Amino acid sequence: MDKTVNKKEWSSVYRDSIVIDGLAVGPPSGKLVQDLIAAGITACNWTVSSHREDTLQGLNKIIQFYWLLEQFPQVALLVEKASDIERAKKERKLGIIFCFQTTSPLGTNVHLVRVFHRLGVRIIQLTYMEGNALAAGCLEPSNSGLTSLGIQALQEMNRIGVLIDLSHVGERSSLEAIEISEDPVIFSHSNARKVQENPRNISDEQMKSCAAKGGVIGLASFSAL
Amino acid sequence: MDKTVNKKEWSSVYRDSIVIDGLAVGPPSGKLVQDLIAAGITACNWTVSSHREDTLQGLNKIIQFYWLLEQFPQVALLVEKASDIERAKKERKLGIIFCFQTTSPLGTNVHLVRVFHRLGVRIIQLTYMEGNALAAGCLEPSNSGLTSLGIQALQEMNRIGVLIDLSHVGERSSLEAIEISEDPVIFSHSNARKVQENPRNISDEQMKSCAAKGGVIGLASFSAL
Repeated sequence: MDKTVNKKEWSSVYRDSIVIDGLAVGPPSGKLVQDLIAAGITACNWTVSSHREDTLQGLNKIIQFYWLLEQFPQVALLVEKASDIERAKKERKLGIIFCFQTTSPLGTNVHLVRVFHRLGVRIIQLTYMEGNALAAGCLEPSNSGLTSLGIQALQEMNRIGVLIDLSHVGERSSLEAIEISEDPVIFSHSNARKVQENPRNISDEQMKSCAAKGGVIGLASFSAL
Repeated sequence: MDKTVNKKEWSSVYRDSIVIDGLAVGPPSGKLVQDLIAAGITACNWTVSSHREDTLQGLNKIIQFYWLLEQFPQVALLVEKASDIERAKKERKLGIIFCFQTTSPLGTNVHLVRVFHRLGVRIIQLTYMEGNALAAGCLEPSNSGLTSLGIQALQEMNRIGVLIDLSHVGERSSLEAIEISEDPVIFSHSNARKVQENPRNISDEQMKSCAAKGGVIGLASFSAL
């Protein structure tokens, strides 16, 4: 970052660029939509479901975001394909990308990937802090790899077109996901373990493997754990 | 019906018309798709969920029909809008209209109308034989009217664009639904009580009220209860 760039120049950078917020957390709120637009954000990867929420809880969270989209059509739109982000930029709206920071709404039914995709979900993170039936989370003591079900779910996400997010995922599970996935994957919000030793942060190997497959790594601010 | 029309002439009627099967029942099957196409059917109102199935069971039934559509794209397509029926005719495919012969997958959450609509469901029958939280079924002894929740669900179906089906619904509930609905409703598969006295059949008042609002009544064959 060029420290000599002044505030006015930054404004023009935001004005001329597509800027994607790697992760927002919080209930659907018109105020947050307005704040993100004012901050120059074009599209936002917004956490719809997280932690241990099950299928019905996942559906209910989606319903809450449908409410947001219905209430504020003049400032918000749902991103279902890449061109929707360009449309958001053109129409000065916030493009909302539905993400699950967990696979728990899938339970053990990989066919629900198609259902949630059809409902608008475009990014799914394999685990939150804890592990689940698919993979180990970053706070799991075992640092185990993907389960058979995890591999099947990952392949289904590749097939259907759901982006795999590896933030919060245990190191070994994340490295296996990077290797197995046919498409690039992301760490939507992860910092460097070399700078700060913390199981939530990621190793150089994770970063380099992700980048080598064409993936993207976003930094996590304190508020976006 | 002109009894002098011969078989050859009937073939041309089917060839030149859009023919909608008012109700099919049975698991998703490529054989049934082929049989319906061979019979000259353009589109078919196919029962995806029925009886007392809950939200998760409803989702799983939808998943099974997604399998059918994925397995037989050369002969089947999902009908999500009216023009899809015309497309089915043109492409000599069977247009499949997802219907629920029950509102039980909604439970008591009318917001699930939007979710199931997004998943492809276009016709929802208020009850099967039994009543539920929304309305009385035709075999309920009380012949009660719509509940408050039933009225809300009906209004949500109007708002979202889900066709209301009143086959199997109790007489009073069905008459109230016809009156309250802003859009025409259907009895997709119901016969005349005047011809055969049976609580499953419908009265002249039900038929006339439905028709007066622009609705459609389909006859039920023995196999389509």
